[in-house]
Amino acid sequence: MKKVKSKYEILRQKIYIIIYGTSTLAGKTFDLLLLVIILLSVVLIMMASIIRYDELYHDFFVISEWIITVFFSIEYILRIISNKKPLNYIFSFYGFVDLISLLPMYLSFFIPGSEALTVIRSLRLLRLFAILDLIPFLNQSSHIKESLRASMSKIIVFVYFIFVMSIILGTIMYIVEGRHNGFTNIPNSIYWCIVTMTTVGYGDIAPITPVGKAIASFIMIMGYGIIAVPTGIVTAELAKNRKGKKNQKNCPRCKMYIYNEYANFCYNCGEKFIDGAVKINN
Amino acid sequence: MKKVKSKYEILRQKIYIIIYGTSTLAGKTFDLLLLVIILLSVVLIMMASIIRYDELYHDFFVISEWIITVFFSIEYILRIISNKKPLNYIFSFYGFVDLISLLPMYLSFFIPGSEALTVIRSLRLLRLFAILDLIPFLNQSSHIKESLRASMSKIIVFVYFIFVMSIILGTIMYIVEGRHNGFTNIPNSIYWCIVTMTTVGYGDIAPITPVGKAIASFIMIMGYGIIAVPTGIVTAELAKNRKGKKNQKNCPRCKMYIYNEYANFCYNCGEKFIDGAVKINN
Amino acid sequence: MKKVKSKYEILRQKIYIIIYGTSTLAGKTFDLLLLVIILLSVVLIMMASIIRYDELYHDFFVISEWIITVFFSIEYILRIISNKKPLNYIFSFYGFVDLISLLPMYLSFFIPGSEALTVIRSLRLLRLFAILDLIPFLNQSSHIKESLRASMSKIIVFVYFIFVMSIILGTIMYIVEGRHNGFTNIPNSIYWCIVTMTTVGYGDIAPITPVGKAIASFIMIMGYGIIAVPTGIVTAELAKNRKGKKNQKNCPRCKMYIYNEYANFCYNCGEKFIDGAVKINN
Amino acid sequence: MKKVKSKYEILRQKIYIIIYGTSTLAGKTFDLLLLVIILLSVVLIMMASIIRYDELYHDFFVISEWIITVFFSIEYILRIISNKKPLNYIFSFYGFVDLISLLPMYLSFFIPGSEALTVIRSLRLLRLFAILDLIPFLNQSSHIKESLRASMSKIIVFVYFIFVMSIILGTIMYIVEGRHNGFTNIPNSIYWCIVTMTTVGYGDIAPITPVGKAIASFIMIMGYGIIAVPTGIVTAELAKNRKGKKNQKNCPRCKMYIYNEYANFCYNCGEKFIDGAVKINN
Repeated sequence: MKKVKSKYEILRQKIYIIIYGTSTLAGKTFDLLLLVIILLSVVLIMMASIIRYDELYHDFFVISEWIITVFFSIEYILRIISNKKPLNYIFSFYGFVDLISLLPMYLSFFIPGSEALTVIRSLRLLRLFAILDLIPFLNQSSHIKESLRASMSKIIVFVYFIFVMSIILGTIMYIVEGRHNGFTNIPNSIYWCIVTMTTVGYGDIAPITPVGKAIASFIMIMGYGIIAVPTGIVTAELAKNRKGKKNQKNCPRCKMYIYNEYANFCYNCGEKFIDGAVKINN
Repeated sequence: MKKVKSKYEILRQKIYIIIYGTSTLAGKTFDLLLLVIILLSVVLIMMASIIRYDELYHDFFVISEWIITVFFSIEYILRIISNKKPLNYIFSFYGFVDLISLLPMYLSFFIPGSEALTVIRSLRLLRLFAILDLIPFLNQSSHIKESLRASMSKIIVFVYFIFVMSIILGTIMYIVEGRHNGFTNIPNSIYWCIVTMTTVGYGDIAPITPVGKAIASFIMIMGYGIIAVPTGIVTAELAKNRKGKKNQKNCPRCKMYIYNEYANFCYNCGEKFIDGAVKINN
Repeated sequence: MKKVKSKYEILRQKIYIIIYGTSTLAGKTFDLLLLVIILLSVVLIMMASIIRYDELYHDFFVISEWIITVFFSIEYILRIISNKKPLNYIFSFYGFVDLISLLPMYLSFFIPGSEALTVIRSLRLLRLFAILDLIPFLNQSSHIKESLRASMSKIIVFVYFIFVMSIILGTIMYIVEGRHNGFTNIPNSIYWCIVTMTTVGYGDIAPITPVGKAIASFIMIMGYGIIAVPTGIVTAELAKNRKGKKNQKNCPRCKMYIYNEYANFCYNCGEKFIDGAVKINN
Repeated sequence: MKKVKSKYEILRQKIYIIIYGTSTLAGKTFDLLLLVIILLSVVLIMMASIIRYDELYHDFFVISEWIITVFFSIEYILRIISNKKPLNYIFSFYGFVDLISLLPMYLSFFIPGSEALTVIRSLRLLRLFAILDLIPFLNQSSHIKESLRASMSKIIVFVYFIFVMSIILGTIMYIVEGRHNGFTNIPNSIYWCIVTMTTVGYGDIAPITPVGKAIASFIMIMGYGIIAVPTGIVTAELAKNRKGKKNQKNCPRCKMYIYNEYANFCYNCGEKFIDGAVKINN
C-alpha cells in the first residue's frame, strides 16, 4: 500500500501541489484566483456595510455571499483532505482564520442575523501577504522582516515603556483635570495619554486647566522625542544587516565568519586567503 | 534636403534650444519666465477661488485667464512644431499636463461653467521641480532621488502592509463600535484607521466604547512604532549611497580597501596608483 | 557582637535577600508577587474611578484598598528594618514612592476624602521596569538605556530649542490671531504652538485668519522637519554603541584596525594575537 | 591720539568686555543678569496677556514694563557707544531685535495702545541660545548645528517638495470636495493639505465625500512615508560627522585630509606615517 500509490493518492498529491504549492503554473494560478476572490469578497462586504447600497442591492449581496461561502467551503475541505497532516493545517493560524470566515453564514440558519459577522472574512486578507513571494519586484520583505524580528525584543521594551508611562501620566492628568473635561475616569485618561504620546491627537479629550495644559505640553514633547528610539533601533538593525550581507565570506579552513571582505588572512586560524579560492568555497 | 538646412529648419532648431534647452542664456530665461507665469496663473486661480475676491474682480480674473491660456497655447504649439519627434512630447507626462491645462478654457465656449476646471492648471506647478536643476545650491536632489528610487520597492511593501492592516483593523473597529459613532460603514472605519495609524488624528471619527478605545490605543502605538520602518529604510539607503560605490577602489598590490577616490598612494603599502591601472584591476 | 550573628541578624539577612534580591527563587517569587499586587491595585483604582462601577461595588473597592494598603505597609516596614542602611532606602526614589503610596489611606482617617489620592499608587508601577531584569528575552534595555544616557545632553538642547521657539512663535500667533479664536492669552498660544510643533494637533485651538494659517503652516513644516534631529541623535548613538568601542583592537605589528574582538590573527599581516599583548599595546 | 588711550577709551573697552565678552567673570555675570531680566520680562508679558490678571494688577504690569524698558534702553545705548563699529551692531540681527523691543513703549506716548506690541520683546528670548555656550554640559549644540548646516540645502529641497505637493493636492481636494466642508477656497485646501501631510491633523477641516476621504488617505500615507526623508538626511549627516571627528589626521607633508586613522602611508603623497609625528603636527 505504501509503495503502490492508489489513484486517490495521486489525485490528493495533485490537489496538494495546486492548493499549497506556488512553484507550478497551476499553483500560482490558484493562489492568484484565491486572492482575487478574497479581495472581491472583502469589497462586497464593504459595499454591503454602506446602508444606502444595502437597501438597493440586498438580494445581490446575499446571493454573492453564499456563492463565495460555498467556494471557500470547498477550498477548506480540499485543504484538509489533500493534506497528509490535516491537523497541522486545521490548527494553524490560516486554518483557524479560514474556518471562522465560513461559520457566520452557516450559523445564520440557526441564529438569524449572525451573517452580519461575515466581516470577519476580511481576516483572510492576511493571505495577501503571500502574494509578496509571488512578485519578484516586491520580494524585498524578507530583509525587512529579518531586521524587524531582530529588533522585536527591543521594540517590545519600548512599547512596554510607553504603556507604563501612559498609565502613570494618565493617572496624574486624572487628578489634575479633576474628573471633568473628558477625563471622566482613569482608563479614559490613559487613552488620552496614548492618543497624545503617539502624536495622534484627536481632540475629543483635551486639557482645559493651565496645569493640565502644562503637563500635556511635557507629555507631547516627550512623546515627540522618544519616537526617536524605535526608529533608531530599526535603522541600526537595517544598516547592520545591509553591511553584513555583501561582505560575508567564510574562511575555507576554519569556516569562521569574516567581517571584512578585504582581509588577507583569516583572523581566526591565520590561513592566507587567495580571493578566488574563497569565492569557490562560497 | 538632409544636408542643406532650410531656413525653417534653422528656426525650428533655435526655438527648440530656447524652449527645451537650459544651457543657453535664452533657454534659462525662457524657463524662468515660464515658471513665473505658471506661479502667477496659480496665484490668480487661488485668488479667484476666494468668493469675496471673485465678486470684486471677476472680470479681471477672466481676462487674465484668457491671456495666460493664449500664452500657454502658443507655448504648447511651439513645443510640438519645434520638436523633431512631436509625439514623444505629446504623449509624455508634461505634454499631457500641458494639454489638459488648456482644455477647460476652450471647453467653456461649448459647456458653460467648465472654466472652473482651470484649477487643473496647478499641475503645471510640477515643472517647478525643473528649477532645481537651474540653481546649483539646491542641486542636491539627485542624491536623494537616487536613494528614494533604490528604497522604492521596500516603501511599496510597507505602504501595502499599512493598507492591508488598515482594512483588517478598520473592519474590526466597525464590528466593535457597532455602526454608530461615525463608524457608519467599513470604508469609513478604514479611513479612520489610516487617519489613526499615520498619527494624523482629525478627531472627526473617534472611538467611544471602552473596547474600541483599547483597540484604538493598540493601533496608535503600532502606528507610532512602525513609522520606524520607512525611516530606517531610507536612512540606511542614504548612508549607503553616501559611502558610495563609486569611491571604492582596491590597491592592486595589497588588495586593501581605499575609501577616498582621490588617493594617489595606497594607505596601507604605499603603492603609487595610476588611475587607469586601478580601474583595470577592478 | 560583630562576629557572632544574632538570630535577629540572620532573619534580617534572609528577609533582605527575599525582598531586595533577585537571584534566589524566593527573591524572584517575592518580586513577581509584588508586581502582581501592584498591577492588581492599579486595576482596582482604575475600576473605582469609573463612577458606574464605584456605585455598584463601593464597599468591595474600599475593603480591597485597605487590604492592599496593609500589605504595602508591612512591605515598607520590612524594607526598612531588613536594610543595614535604612536611610539609603527611605531617601531613594522608590522609598519615596512607596511612602506616598501609603499616606492617602491613613490620611483619610483625619481628612475625609483624601483616599481619592490613592491614585498616586500608580507610581509604584515604575517598579514594573524591574521585571525587565527578570526576563532574559527582554533584557535588551541596558543597551538602549546606555545610548539614551549618552544622547541625553543633546536631547536637552533640542527640547530647549523647541521650548524657546514655542514661546516666540506662540507670542507671534497671539498678536496675529488677535486675542480671539482660542488664542486668548500668550500661555494658551504657547500651548497651541507645542501641540502643533509636536504634530499632535488636537484642534481645540486652531488659527482662523489667513495670516495665522500661513504662520501655522510654517510651524507645522518646521516641526515635521526637526523631528529628524532627536531621531538622528539617538540613531547615531545606537549605531555607534553597536559597533562598540569594546571591540576595537589594533594589530601590534601592522597597526591595522580589527573589527572582531575574537580575532586570533591579524587579517592584514597574519600576526598571531596574544590577548594580553594586544591589550598592553592599546 | 592713537597710541595714548584716553580715559574714555579705557572705559569704553571695559564696558565692551562686560557687555559683549563672556570670558571674564563680569562678562558672564552681565550675560546671566540680562537673561534673567529677559525671562522676567517675558513672564510679565505672558501674565499681562491673561485678562483676569491684567484686571487685578494692571498698574504693577505697566510700572514693571517701564522699568524693564529703561534698563533695556540703557543696555542698547551702551552696546552702541562701547562698540568701535556701532553700525555692525545696529544692523545685526540682535541689534534690530533689541531696537524693536524698545519701540512699542516709547510709541505709546504718541499712539495710545501701541504698548500692546511689547509682546515683540519675546524675540529677545533668542538670546537664550547664547546661554548654551556658557554651560559646558549643554555645549553639544555645535555638533548638531554643524550637521544641520550641512544638511540644510537638502532640507530646503524637501520643504520645497512638500510645499509644491501641498499646492497641487490642495487644489485637487478643492475640486473634489466642491467648495463646501471647509474646503471653501484653494488657500484653505492647501492649509488643510499641509495640516494633513505633516500629520498634525486638527480636524477643523476634514473631507466628507468618499473620494475626498480616499485622496486624504493617500496623502496621509504619503506624508507618513516621506517623514523618512529629512530624518534620513540628518541621521546620515550626524553619523558622518561623528565618524569624521575622531579620525581626522592631516599628512604632515602635504596637509591633505586623511579619513582612516590606521593609514600607514599618506594616500596623496605617499609619505610614510609615524604615529607620534602626525599627532605632534596636529
